[in-house]
Amino acid sequence: MTELDGDLHLQLAGLRPAMDSFLRPQAIAVVGASSDPGTLSGLLFANLAGSGFGGAVLPVNKRHPSIQGVAAYPDLVSCPVVPDLVVVCVPAPAVGAVIAEAGRLGVKAVCVISAGFAETGEAGSDLQDALAREALAHGTRLVGPNCAGVVGGEGDLRFNATFGRIVPPPGNISVISQSGAFGLGVLEMMGERGLGLRNFVSIGNTADLAIADFLLYWGTDPGTELVLLYLESVPEPRRFMRVAKQVSARVPIVVLKAGRTDAGRRGAASHTAALSSGDVAVDALLHQAGAIRAESVEEVLDLAALLSLHHRYPGRRVGIVTNGGGSGVIAADACESNGLVVPEVSPATADRLRAWLPTEASVANPIDMIASASEGQYREVAQVVGQSGDVDVVMVVFNVPVLTPATAVARELAAAHNHIGAEVPIVAVFLNRDGPPPSLRQAGIASFVFPEGAARALAAAVTWNEARDRLPAERVQPRTRPASVGTFLAEARLRARDGWLGFGDTEALLESYGIAVPKSVTARTPHEAGLVQSKLRRPVVVKVAAPIHKSDIGGVRLDVSTPGAAAEAVRGIRADLEAAGVADLGDELVVQEQITEGQEMIAGFNRDPLLGPLVVAGLGGRLVELMGDVAVRVSPLTDLDVTEMVQSLRSYRLLTGYRGSPVLDLDAFHNVLKAVSAVAEECPEIAEMDLNPVFVLDKGAMVVDARVRLYMQPGAGPVTSRKWGS
Amino acid sequence: MTELDGDLHLQLAGLRPAMDSFLRPQAIAVVGASSDPGTLSGLLFANLAGSGFGGAVLPVNKRHPSIQGVAAYPDLVSCPVVPDLVVVCVPAPAVGAVIAEAGRLGVKAVCVISAGFAETGEAGSDLQDALAREALAHGTRLVGPNCAGVVGGEGDLRFNATFGRIVPPPGNISVISQSGAFGLGVLEMMGERGLGLRNFVSIGNTADLAIADFLLYWGTDPGTELVLLYLESVPEPRRFMRVAKQVSARVPIVVLKAGRTDAGRRGAASHTAALSSGDVAVDALLHQAGAIRAESVEEVLDLAALLSLHHRYPGRRVGIVTNGGGSGVIAADACESNGLVVPEVSPATADRLRAWLPTEASVANPIDMIASASEGQYREVAQVVGQSGDVDVVMVVFNVPVLTPATAVARELAAAHNHIGAEVPIVAVFLNRDGPPPSLRQAGIASFVFPEGAARALAAAVTWNEARDRLPAERVQPRTRPASVGTFLAEARLRARDGWLGFGDTEALLESYGIAVPKSVTARTPHEAGLVQSKLRRPVVVKVAAPIHKSDIGGVRLDVSTPGAAAEAVRGIRADLEAAGVADLGDELVVQEQITEGQEMIAGFNRDPLLGPLVVAGLGGRLVELMGDVAVRVSPLTDLDVTEMVQSLRSYRLLTGYRGSPVLDLDAFHNVLKAVSAVAEECPEIAEMDLNPVFVLDKGAMVVDARVRLYMQPGAGPVTSRKWGS
Repeated sequence: MTELDGDLHLQLAGLRPAMDSFLRPQAIAVVGASSDPGTLSGLLFANLAGSGFGGAVLPVNKRHPSIQGVAAYPDLVSCPVVPDLVVVCVPAPAVGAVIAEAGRLGVKAVCVISAGFAETGEAGSDLQDALAREALAHGTRLVGPNCAGVVGGEGDLRFNATFGRIVPPPGNISVISQSGAFGLGVLEMMGERGLGLRNFVSIGNTADLAIADFLLYWGTDPGTELVLLYLESVPEPRRFMRVAKQVSARVPIVVLKAGRTDAGRRGAASHTAALSSGDVAVDALLHQAGAIRAESVEEVLDLAALLSLHHRYPGRRVGIVTNGGGSGVIAADACESNGLVVPEVSPATADRLRAWLPTEASVANPIDMIASASEGQYREVAQVVGQSGDVDVVMVVFNVPVLTPATAVARELAAAHNHIGAEVPIVAVFLNRDGPPPSLRQAGIASFVFPEGAARALAAAVTWNEARDRLPAERVQPRTRPASVGTFLAEARLRARDGWLGFGDTEALLESYGIAVPKSVTARTPHEAGLVQSKLRRPVVVKVAAPIHKSDIGGVRLDVSTPGAAAEAVRGIRADLEAAGVADLGDELVVQEQITEGQEMIAGFNRDPLLGPLVVAGLGGRLVELMGDVAVRVSPLTDLDVTEMVQSLRSYRLLTGYRGSPVLDLDAFHNVLKAVSAVAEECPEIAEMDLNPVFVLDKGAMVVDARVRLYMQPGAGPVTSRKWGS
Repeated sequence: MTELDGDLHLQLAGLRPAMDSFLRPQAIAVVGASSDPGTLSGLLFANLAGSGFGGAVLPVNKRHPSIQGVAAYPDLVSCPVVPDLVVVCVPAPAVGAVIAEAGRLGVKAVCVISAGFAETGEAGSDLQDALAREALAHGTRLVGPNCAGVVGGEGDLRFNATFGRIVPPPGNISVISQSGAFGLGVLEMMGERGLGLRNFVSIGNTADLAIADFLLYWGTDPGTELVLLYLESVPEPRRFMRVAKQVSARVPIVVLKAGRTDAGRRGAASHTAALSSGDVAVDALLHQAGAIRAESVEEVLDLAALLSLHHRYPGRRVGIVTNGGGSGVIAADACESNGLVVPEVSPATADRLRAWLPTEASVANPIDMIASASEGQYREVAQVVGQSGDVDVVMVVFNVPVLTPATAVARELAAAHNHIGAEVPIVAVFLNRDGPPPSLRQAGIASFVFPEGAARALAAAVTWNEARDRLPAERVQPRTRPASVGTFLAEARLRARDGWLGFGDTEALLESYGIAVPKSVTARTPHEAGLVQSKLRRPVVVKVAAPIHKSDIGGVRLDVSTPGAAAEAVRGIRADLEAAGVADLGDELVVQEQITEGQEMIAGFNRDPLLGPLVVAGLGGRLVELMGDVAVRVSPLTDLDVTEMVQSLRSYRLLTGYRGSPVLDLDAFHNVLKAVSAVAEECPEIAEMDLNPVFVLDKGAMVVDARVRLYMQPGAGPVTSRKWGS
């Protein structure tokens, strides 16, 4: 059972009565149920009436005394019992009255199927807000509008109140979809693969109850062992992240997030009218939330097949057991290209295997038992490998049944699985027309048709296990910014140019957050520049003070070693700026101690309209954009986030002693990133900050150039709490 | 019909009689056929006898007068007709005699199923060579040994001489597999998806006939419209590349190449005993061969579903038509993340669509007809989009059948397909339990369960179309190296150190191939270095002459501007070398004009033991390895290869004017790469060559550092013809 943070625990307690009414009702009313199963509301009612629900099914219809053979009532008040769940199918303008009636009766849960709300534009959006207000006034909670219904209940209270004719048998997977039709398609495919369903919620426009609310509920629901989400947007992303992070400590959350590309986002916008965030930001969010992001519909199903049986996949070492050499090679490729490892087994294991196998067999890993392999050899070899200590998982790949029938192999694998125990799970791939026999899954063995799908799901499960072992310990320490920062930024805004902080203000801001900068002095004449150089007494950089991309317009001179050269640099820069038509940028220049050692990196943040601040870390210098070697996380950053994002860079090795270069001060770079996160959290006045390059040195780190932009109007920009914590 | 190069045409003419005997026999003998269908030879015979083959089936068995109810003969001579194809199932030691007998009878085609040859070690390998010699002596051709058989024939001569019980219906796909069992599994899955088979060959150990031979045959076989290959190694890679390049101008070749990872290669080695090449090299080979490389078993099937119906996919613009918003978003993501484009349709098209659709529908692209979409709307909308000129392909995505049945939609799509014509193909995705109705494929519409699979296959097909339009025109001009090169390299070898060419010889080699180097003079004392600097009269680099990675051990000094500094540099380098324990490397130094502009790149080649020389191009400098921004091609390079490999680099933009830097001399870099390819082809004495950095300048390109290694023994190293061409 998940231990929820205090206030989440309270949120859940508040939600529980409504959630129980949605997902475990005893009486369900369908308002607007139609007699014609060729209409959507008729189909939904037919599905509900035909789903074997043992509680009360109450069609509500003003004109007909019975609906599809079930006694109907003209309104909710007339029903013989107060329904736990009311499903509403009436036209949009009539929905408000139904909610009001339900509210007055004390109904806790209303699912609004009807469309014609926020997805249609502003008027619909207003109508939707009115629904939510009406419900709130009575303490009634809503799912929808514009949704495809709910599946839930247990035993003889199991019900299907959706458009979907085919739903999976009861099981331990709970599903939410932001697209009704797509969600119903996934349900059909789940059933086809033998995957069982706990609850299904088509969340629709999310006028009231949101995905995070259901996550909270399922996080402590012993019947839910896996959550699948189809998302096109992430409403309340910061709450979602916080809830998902805690829930996924117990239950894996698999997310298919669509709208990854421009065309996908365009489609999603016209589909759900929701703002969507860039895909890199969503990736960061889901990673930090501890969710598993699936890249395709099929990967969702593969992950469901794996994780609904068993959560614990503790390591990356896979033993491959097969009756086909080619299939073994393909499985080995699939494992290793997904980051799993296929180690050779130990000599002792190899000896034990030889006792069971003919000489033509290969006892390396992949273990090729050759085409003659019997069901008994499958059992014995799987057991030897599973108990060898050499591997963490056994992947059994069965080829076309030449002499040994697939069902016999499945039976013996079930015996091997019982013998080995859950410590070393078996996953099965049956690479032929009929695919894996259903008896495998019934025996607790996840099974697949394609080795690539099995390996990809397995690798994702191992990664989730690794992350889960680390995540719960990670908290951000709440802190509040000093009052002086507000005053400083208010004054700096008056001096800013198009919102960009001037050189001195930028330097002051960085220093107040503990970020080091090289010695720098501004100069307004060639003579002043020469004086500064002679005082600094070492090579300097002369550059434009204005916060622009300086090198693109000739605004920088390096290796300036004499006062004369410094004066000349000022004149040269001004000539270049004039040629570029931006002479006014040359009024103020900076003479700065030149950093000649260390590694150029970047750090910074910008703000996603939905997700809030996104912190970036990466390789700096001229190649930044071309190489794209950056990592992004949603602020606030934990220590683990900082470590992970830096380690994930290809340029990480440049910081840790690469080809004879010195080991650099990783901690100092980490501290810069933490400071960036702190600025992002504490200073909502700042729209973006770009530190490039950050020189990471043997000791310390120096920000050589920085650009900081404020929102032009005080109080503009997304609101972020000035007090922040986990 | 492919127009084959002259000598390939002759090769094919020589192969044709044997190929016809293998793939279109009238009489098939099975030597060693067993009465027991529980054995492999009994199963193969049962499959053959049960496959409806209308020609003569001739079991040959010394002990039994009939096999599974068919009259048997004690030997081949006793058969009433000379078989066209002899399938051999006897134990390994007895195979030679069967081949001799078949040869004497004039049999042209022998398929050796029996195992126990090269895959078992050296003795088996000798036995296998003996088979090939025996066959050659009689003009008999072999498939195998160690294979799973052949499927072929047409009409009432259709036959299945494999272990596989289930083979697809006749069709236009020809398949070769280096793994018998895996190949049979693919056949089962092809049948399941309604894909038809032309020929199947389990190629086994390739004692004689190789994959390229079958490719040649299928390249001019009107019944073959698609070739699928499962490879673990590429025997005769240069011939394979040449043949595949010509064949794929007519027929797409889809390759699943296993052994991509270390474990995969280990498995492949133990499976087929074949040497395998690095995966990057194989990628280059397949790309240059015009083949389509599939990454998974499922991708093979998806590509087969697409390309067996239709070859021509001329463009990347996809129109998505769906009845589910979520599915449209997922399909759009799948298209764009695979490099396809989902453009908004034109205003005129949008207007036309609005006439057919309700107001809630979205007429942008993806076109969401909403859940109420009827089969008629599917037809009309697909037609409008297909004929709009806005897109090159229509992808129709059908969700769960709520009110409209899938079969009705399939029927109307077939009508739309007929109406639009093949210029704008329709591909269909049916995203639900039952998947696409088979009638779609029968109507000529490729159909899929998952949008991601459809998009991936479609993108690969478009890429293949683009490549096919360019490939045939590309030839390498044959040339022969000057005689003087041989003399020079023979002498240089005597002066080389561990095979590495000295500084002067390296420079001479480069210059003889037209590769420019900066002015450089060697120096042995600090004083000499000073003299050279004063003559060059500009900043120089002082560095170790020996061919080592100089900067890692302090062997380079940059920005040396005075004679005194040059002398000091020599002393400094020698001190560093001494400290590193390699003082002897400091005897000879080079004083070289310093290049301060342009972009650092790399170029070079090494030799793969099977594929021959591999040319590399990439971003140079310190980050080479970390960024991995390199492209590899198999030599000899065509102009197209050179252009493509440079364009494929992330750093390409650094050469074409990046953020204000000048446009550099791309042609000069191309010429360096062509020269590298020429050295690789013309100088088999050279094991490897590494030009790093190559400075690409405003005008020209300069190789600042080069390392060239000769094979230590004259005549060592892989043999490459000194005369080369396409």
